Amino acid sequence: MTTPESSAAKTSDRPARDPWELPDVSGLVVGVLGGTGDQGRGLAYRFARAGQQVVIGSRVEERALAAAGELGHGVRGAENAECARLSDVVIVAVPWEGHARTLEALAGDLAGKLVVDCVNPLGFDKKGAYALKPEEGSAAEQAAVLLPESRVTAAFHHLSAVLLQDPEVERIDTDVLVLGESRADTDVVQALAARIPGMRGVFAGRLRGAHQVESLVANLISVNRRYKAHAGLRVTDV
Amino acid sequence: MTTPESSAAKTSDRPARDPWELPDVSGLVVGVLGGTGDQGRGLAYRFARAGQQVVIGSRVEERALAAAGELGHGVRGAENAECARLSDVVIVAVPWEGHARTLEALAGDLAGKLVVDCVNPLGFDKKGAYALKPEEGSAAEQAAVLLPESRVTAAFHHLSAVLLQDPEVERIDTDVLVLGESRADTDVVQALAARIPGMRGVFAGRLRGAHQVESLVANLISVNRRYKAHAGLRVTDV
Repeated sequence: MTTPESSAAKTSDRPARDPWELPDVSGLVVGVLGGTGDQGRGLAYRFARAGQQVVIGSRVEERALAAAGELGHGVRGAENAECARLSDVVIVAVPWEGHARTLEALAGDLAGKLVVDCVNPLGFDKKGAYALKPEEGSAAEQAAVLLPESRVTAAFHHLSAVLLQDPEVERIDTDVLVLGESRADTDVVQALAARIPGMRGVFAGRLRGAHQVESLVANLISVNRRYKAHAGLRVTDV
Repeated sequence: MTTPESSAAKTSDRPARDPWELPDVSGLVVGVLGGTGDQGRGLAYRFARAGQQVVIGSRVEERALAAAGELGHGVRGAENAECARLSDVVIVAVPWEGHARTLEALAGDLAGKLVVDCVNPLGFDKKGAYALKPEEGSAAEQAAVLLPESRVTAAFHHLSAVLLQDPEVERIDTDVLVLGESRADTDVVQALAARIPGMRGVFAGRLRGAHQVESLVANLISVNRRYKAHAGLRVTDV
């Protein structure tokens, strides 16, 4: 890539940031909406295993309770609205098809909360996965529109649900790209990512840059098919 | 991310690919259109330094010759059309603003050639860089539309022009995401990437997945600003 990165990196007089210099988030309650899906369960499991208090949310309370019971590690289950109210940080891991409807219904419960959208709007056909372009620009920007009283960030897009859920996997060596409008909020999300062994949160811009981060999952699916991998990403030189 | 990656990776009976098992491309002549810009010069320099025959193209022959002379390592310079004709593989490194016009004019000279588009359509404002969405979907897909007789691929989007051009830098530790419709073509581009010490080419899907790869440069620019880095990407588990 050309110019601006280099000149900005060279001439800015702001100090360099250390991606590990982050707030203590160990006391925060993490809710996972859509916590009974593969991605949601996987994230809930990893955070709980790392010692975080976790509440799984589902449209149906019984399903949330069942998933919570299976995951152990003190994970609680609740209907989505109650999950939102109980949590400090709420991860949105619902299927893209239900994204707008779910968030619209929970706008009140999510008011004042730090919301982390990890939804990837994708379509699938016989050639594989392809990006869908939400009218608002991205799933995260849709969340920001629907949740005007929440602090919306985007992260955790590129994690393999298989690795997240596999109790034999001790470390998940990958970076988590974190996007958002406020440094305080993205710092919290980066710190959460860093709670999971092997993971590191890296700030990667404002929400208007979320579409390509969400869509890149289509490429990682191609990588996985070609190389029989559970591909993740590392950012070099940081 | 959920499901398809994992099921595909687990159930397909195709053998896993080795990203290093690639054709010998050491005899191919590499042309770089827009080879007098930072990105083009940087790529030309790295390929020539790796022993590849390189021709820099420019709209103005004298500028191409001047840049070639400065780079050394046997790099030649030529007007764009001549650069295209002399080369087996032609890297498109022109500014996005001139992308369509340049390729349209060179469609005949590029017929039968392997074209590698590395252009990132970006806009800039006081908040930083943001993705532009070409009508055709991406710069690479625009190239494919304008060059129906060429084999169009996309790669080399995420490289720091600063690192590419710095003769003190011996290795550039990064992966190069390679997109295209034909495995034979993407294999050649991956092999070219692997000629540069530290680099590895990784297949990352068809051209319809190029927009997010091109746009991700906006996020890397944010990373570079925050961390004062020259960020690159590594794909893990491959």
